[in-house]
Amino acid sequence: MLKIGIDIMGGDFAPDLALKSFSLLPNYFWENFRLVCFGDTNLFQKYGVAYKIPFEYIECIPCSDEVGYHDTPTKAFKEKPNASIFQGFRYLANNTIHAYLSAGNTGAMLVGIKTLLEPVKGIIRPALISLLPKISGKFGLTVDVGLNIDCKPEYLDQFAILASIFAEEVLKIKNPSVGLINIGEEEGKGNLLSQNAFKLLQSNALIHFIGNKEGRDIFTDDTDVMVCDGFVGNILLKLAESLYNIASERGLDKDIFFSKFNYENYGGMPILGISKPVIIGHGISNEVAFKNMILLAQKMVDADICQKIEQKINHLS
Amino acid sequence: MLKIGIDIMGGDFAPDLALKSFSLLPNYFWENFRLVCFGDTNLFQKYGVAYKIPFEYIECIPCSDEVGYHDTPTKAFKEKPNASIFQGFRYLANNTIHAYLSAGNTGAMLVGIKTLLEPVKGIIRPALISLLPKISGKFGLTVDVGLNIDCKPEYLDQFAILASIFAEEVLKIKNPSVGLINIGEEEGKGNLLSQNAFKLLQSNALIHFIGNKEGRDIFTDDTDVMVCDGFVGNILLKLAESLYNIASERGLDKDIFFSKFNYENYGGMPILGISKPVIIGHGISNEVAFKNMILLAQKMVDADICQKIEQKINHLS
Repeated sequence: MLKIGIDIMGGDFAPDLALKSFSLLPNYFWENFRLVCFGDTNLFQKYGVAYKIPFEYIECIPCSDEVGYHDTPTKAFKEKPNASIFQGFRYLANNTIHAYLSAGNTGAMLVGIKTLLEPVKGIIRPALISLLPKISGKFGLTVDVGLNIDCKPEYLDQFAILASIFAEEVLKIKNPSVGLINIGEEEGKGNLLSQNAFKLLQSNALIHFIGNKEGRDIFTDDTDVMVCDGFVGNILLKLAESLYNIASERGLDKDIFFSKFNYENYGGMPILGISKPVIIGHGISNEVAFKNMILLAQKMVDADICQKIEQKINHLS
Repeated sequence: MLKIGIDIMGGDFAPDLALKSFSLLPNYFWENFRLVCFGDTNLFQKYGVAYKIPFEYIECIPCSDEVGYHDTPTKAFKEKPNASIFQGFRYLANNTIHAYLSAGNTGAMLVGIKTLLEPVKGIIRPALISLLPKISGKFGLTVDVGLNIDCKPEYLDQFAILASIFAEEVLKIKNPSVGLINIGEEEGKGNLLSQNAFKLLQSNALIHFIGNKEGRDIFTDDTDVMVCDGFVGNILLKLAESLYNIASERGLDKDIFFSKFNYENYGGMPILGISKPVIIGHGISNEVAFKNMILLAQKMVDADICQKIEQKINHLS
């Protein structure tokens, strides 16, 4: 059986809504998968009973501590070694679980990854990717959305590879198109980073690069993968999330396009380029978001995404 | 009488809709202002008659040439010295007109500015500013939106001053608030540029700096001036423009918030930090956009914006 680990103490509505999500999982999920929770076993019992979760498929590893949003990640790692968020990474590192997700302190997640997991050989910088909706009804990937703030052209080139493999293997998009987020269509446009990244992307045989994309293309153009540095990507991601709130205020939260900006649909953001599947959830994750994160983790495990990335990167070098 | 110059040959719908806009100008405009057109006098006559423009207030300087979108700006400047877009700058430089606007080739506009106008003493880099709507119904300013792509912290610090003076003098906003577009609220967040710009903005006595702003704040938060480099700003501007098209496709072009994203409302983007008021129009400017550009030029002249900027910058140094 394959196991997905969940830090049930992470997130504004944890463990309550994390537990609630388990009863929303479709039957097919339990055919090959089990859940391993990390957190307070009393709360696990309490909410598990309340939400009638299938206890036979779910275990809880007791963790005596937890990391809050205001904890300093490196300090927390030293002072709260048994916190749920870190315990999950230990189980992932020793292969007791096959994917891991948390909606907790993002900085603590990154410390866990850096300290307890291995990067994939050949990867310069792991990247954080996010789905963004398109007006066509499709979803596209944006990479990096906040893990790598000051980037070199080589990073962007590799982000394109990582997201393309994810698009192909997890989202089942054949020969995914890659665009570079820029301020003009023609080659030579942009800042020094995008000018130089363009050259690398253009000669990158592992991806299907289709050129520069502009701000107006982000939601209107069906490019599968949009590449940018984590500064630009994080601003775009948060702007996109705010559109759902804006649409809601305007009574448009049921609109077929604007409803897609609801963070619940994304089900968290995968980190690619590390040895195991890890998903970072939104702090305000509710039961739908947790459910979608678990199903995304399942897809990543089924696709053997980390192995595929390792193969492709090492074939390259 | 004060005079506003218009390149009637610039823009997808010029001279037709440029001329049409003149009959939309309110009566009060003509009390202190006159228009000076640059372009083909036959077309000026033809469309002027068709749209019943008040010929007694408008003259047309014949220009035997025009610059198209596909002309290389520097080459066009050498080979088409009498093109309408450049003639306007000559009239502006020798004070025959008091403000100038064109919806033509942006690169040619920049060559005109650089070659024929003076920068304001003390200004490191002139900046392009744009209005962006807020969900509250207000408009905020974003600076720079595409003139300065690779920036130093000092540039951003000055952009904040330029836009604050514009907000105060032209938009009549008292003590306008300034935010730095960034990827986290706390000081120390962001890329090297924003980290260092934060320090300068924080100790800048000429502005009312209120800290970092995130992607989610761009449309939801009432900060008057949002500062960023021209790479980020251009992406945000074009994304914002695309929201109007997206809303239109969804039948929401009359929505009180999304309708504000219609470029017509902005009336073009002022360049600040040069010796005279210049406005760059959108290539697809129609008569409403042209009318709003002319009225914005009027406000800039009335506010004596360039003089105010020069005073404030030189008082500083």
